[in-house]
Amino acid sequence: MPAEPTVADLDEQELLARIFPHLPVGDATLVPPGDDAAVVATPDGRTVVTCDVLVEDVHFRRAWSTGHQVGLRAAAQNLADVAAMGARPTALVVGLVMPPTTPVAWVEALAAGLGDGCRPHGAGVVGGDLSSGPALMVAVTAFGDLEGRAPVLRSGARAGDVVAHAGRRGWSAAGLALLLAGQGGADDALVDAFRVPCPPLTAGVDAARAGATALMDVSDGLLRDAGRLARASGVTLDLADPCVAFDDDARRLAPAADLLGVDVREWLLAGGEDHGLLATFPAGAALPAPFVPVGRVLARAATDVLVEGARPAVGTSGWDHFRA
Amino acid sequence: MPAEPTVADLDEQELLARIFPHLPVGDATLVPPGDDAAVVATPDGRTVVTCDVLVEDVHFRRAWSTGHQVGLRAAAQNLADVAAMGARPTALVVGLVMPPTTPVAWVEALAAGLGDGCRPHGAGVVGGDLSSGPALMVAVTAFGDLEGRAPVLRSGARAGDVVAHAGRRGWSAAGLALLLAGQGGADDALVDAFRVPCPPLTAGVDAARAGATALMDVSDGLLRDAGRLARASGVTLDLADPCVAFDDDARRLAPAADLLGVDVREWLLAGGEDHGLLATFPAGAALPAPFVPVGRVLARAATDVLVEGARPAVGTSGWDHFRA
Repeated sequence: MPAEPTVADLDEQELLARIFPHLPVGDATLVPPGDDAAVVATPDGRTVVTCDVLVEDVHFRRAWSTGHQVGLRAAAQNLADVAAMGARPTALVVGLVMPPTTPVAWVEALAAGLGDGCRPHGAGVVGGDLSSGPALMVAVTAFGDLEGRAPVLRSGARAGDVVAHAGRRGWSAAGLALLLAGQGGADDALVDAFRVPCPPLTAGVDAARAGATALMDVSDGLLRDAGRLARASGVTLDLADPCVAFDDDARRLAPAADLLGVDVREWLLAGGEDHGLLATFPAGAALPAPFVPVGRVLARAATDVLVEGARPAVGTSGWDHFRA
Repeated sequence: MPAEPTVADLDEQELLARIFPHLPVGDATLVPPGDDAAVVATPDGRTVVTCDVLVEDVHFRRAWSTGHQVGLRAAAQNLADVAAMGARPTALVVGLVMPPTTPVAWVEALAAGLGDGCRPHGAGVVGGDLSSGPALMVAVTAFGDLEGRAPVLRSGARAGDVVAHAGRRGWSAAGLALLLAGQGGADDALVDAFRVPCPPLTAGVDAARAGATALMDVSDGLLRDAGRLARASGVTLDLADPCVAFDDDARRLAPAADLLGVDVREWLLAGGEDHGLLATFPAGAALPAPFVPVGRVLARAATDVLVEGARPAVGTSGWDHFRA
């Protein structure tokens, strides 16, 4: 049986010819891939720009995720950062580093995943670069259109605002914990949530339209990211009991937490990579679906984030790439 | 003596605090790094987007290049792709993957190099992402402003046009060849040209203003990239004798070529990574400095590129990352 073709069997043009058919052109693409650079429409006169890198054996393992899943995840987490500015995603570019032993089929699946992650939003994959290297690395830069609105920053929360959250909490952390414990078969939906997050991408624009005062993507855990929002805004966030604020998630995660002997609050408060949206709204504002109230904004105190008025007792560190 | 601090000694916030002071804000930066995404001004209503990745031991070696040089190179080669559309560079973002053993000082030098590469052009470094990984990888995405002009594509060359080139030819290949032969001390300027290319960045806008019909960055060698332009335009390029067309470069490279027993035509025609600009102009157009005429455009023939009317005899392959 012949060996599976790898990227070392193709030259760059041949590999690009395998990749391009998977990439959506996108509504904003004026000059598609193939020239020195692409040209993207930015009718607003501004463009939102964000960059996120996925590295093999740091962010994903090929034994756990297909190329298609890694592509979907790379698209989702970058488009989530666009949404977190209150913008509509328009396009992305991809820097892809691959060991020569990478199967061509894996790269095609990655491209298909990137395409499938962009297509529902009208976003195009407009360019990229390929290189060999010692590990798979997917560096995505994504763009978004503010459609005439002001960007919603982390720094706009004011005392008296409501803290709200949209999207899943703790699912990705629970899925990863199951995989690490060799219990991946115990709950496919949680493991899939780790492989491919499902950020509420349209909720970012909806939050901006509804008057959100601050907005951010929750990638490193609720406590850690809430702390960033609090410091940027010069306020303190007082979060509700997570088992009440995120009662659906808490119930959904309970069996896996029991199986692994984990306090579900740990996943709810410190679990990363779900890419939900954390927002603040003026008191009394109608929260756009699927935002739910999860706390309130206080005048700046000694602590960035409180839970039910007290310093949180469980893990506050979130994910850090460099610290052991 | 304490060990040199590495990125593993800092958390992400601490490392960002070391990096940010080196990064220029840029004329087009509306929301600088620090939020979920940056916002860049795109007054033209379009933005040029390009992406290029540098990988340790594929594109550079830490034994040969400082962090500052790698940063300068990463900026230069990305801004060259912006220039190659006839656009003015405005901003870039950087995905940076680092082994935990990477010295903090190396990362600071890289940031300083990126900043120094952008600052003279008014371009900002507006965001990025940091991750650990098995090797240093620098994934840059750069943006440019077309200032109301049409982008100059590879596909616009027409029979009868003049072929022109701006920038150095063969210096980078000669510098790399000296390093590989252990003769790096023989010609510092050539080795420096490999470490840090000096693309003629403002020549891209000048070419567009002067009516260039096609334009591209020469990154993989003149013959290979001229072949791409020829295929995109449906024409054949007939290049002049490179020792005449690039007489200054030929003379400058002669001692190194003699030392290594290389035909200088090989470097002139097939050497990559100089990031000069290849353009076509209507016959009779005044070529903006520093463009020089290097050939003419013929109706499409069986061969993409000719040299003095004949199939070129020396290396035509240029650089391919995957083929052995």
